[in-house]
Amino acid sequence: MSIPSTWQLDHIGIAVSSLNTALKQYEILLGTQHYGREHVHSQGVEVAFLDTSNARIELLAPLSLDSSVAKFINKRGEGMHHTAFLVNDIQSELDRLSALGWDLIHRQPISGAHGKWVAFLHPKSAHAVLIELCAYKK
Amino acid sequence: MSIPSTWQLDHIGIAVSSLNTALKQYEILLGTQHYGREHVHSQGVEVAFLDTSNARIELLAPLSLDSSVAKFINKRGEGMHHTAFLVNDIQSELDRLSALGWDLIHRQPISGAHGKWVAFLHPKSAHAVLIELCAYKK
Repeated sequence: MSIPSTWQLDHIGIAVSSLNTALKQYEILLGTQHYGREHVHSQGVEVAFLDTSNARIELLAPLSLDSSVAKFINKRGEGMHHTAFLVNDIQSELDRLSALGWDLIHRQPISGAHGKWVAFLHPKSAHAVLIELCAYKK
Repeated sequence: MSIPSTWQLDHIGIAVSSLNTALKQYEILLGTQHYGREHVHSQGVEVAFLDTSNARIELLAPLSLDSSVAKFINKRGEGMHHTAFLVNDIQSELDRLSALGWDLIHRQPISGAHGKWVAFLHPKSAHAVLIELCAYKK
């Protein structure tokens, strides 16, 4: 067994058309209640979270037709949208990956949900997976 | 804050065309080496895992053109394929969800990778997310 990554799987983001409808279904699935419902205007989405014992599920619904999540749903339908990892030093991880030729959507972190720093990597560097890095603000 | 689910986020499955190519990229991303590479003939895939600090990333590549993962890639391209939760009693969870009207691919668990029991829920019950339940064999 190799040494695990220092990265923590923070959440999986699932794009849905109706947050109310999807939250009901995922609350049944996981046997828990959602929390942290909020509008993230910088990304044009309303989000809410459900806790598993070690990570979280984020449901995202578009707030406007021109948001990237609305475009995602129009093109591909609802479903898994991104994978988010919690890292210690988000800027140094972005710099490391950039130096290795990774294509970054954000070269510097921006403010995301729940007061965290977030930055997205371009899916083309990760076999079509949209990857979010997030970090606590210190 | 609500009581978390008893379910544990075990891994995210990512469908890729070439396991060798994708493993190199994800080893760079996560700063760890893969392990557990094996053929899962029941599902027509070759898989390998990478550990984060709290969960795992599974990369899946098709072993044959008629496997479900090959069809997935043909239709949608590479990318996030399924979300897997580790549960204590997989049969009772399947029974519970079935009674609540969830559409199950497996009504009883089958043998999956690494000697675990696995069962899949139909994406149409989970807003287009293919969900795997897994459990240790007791």
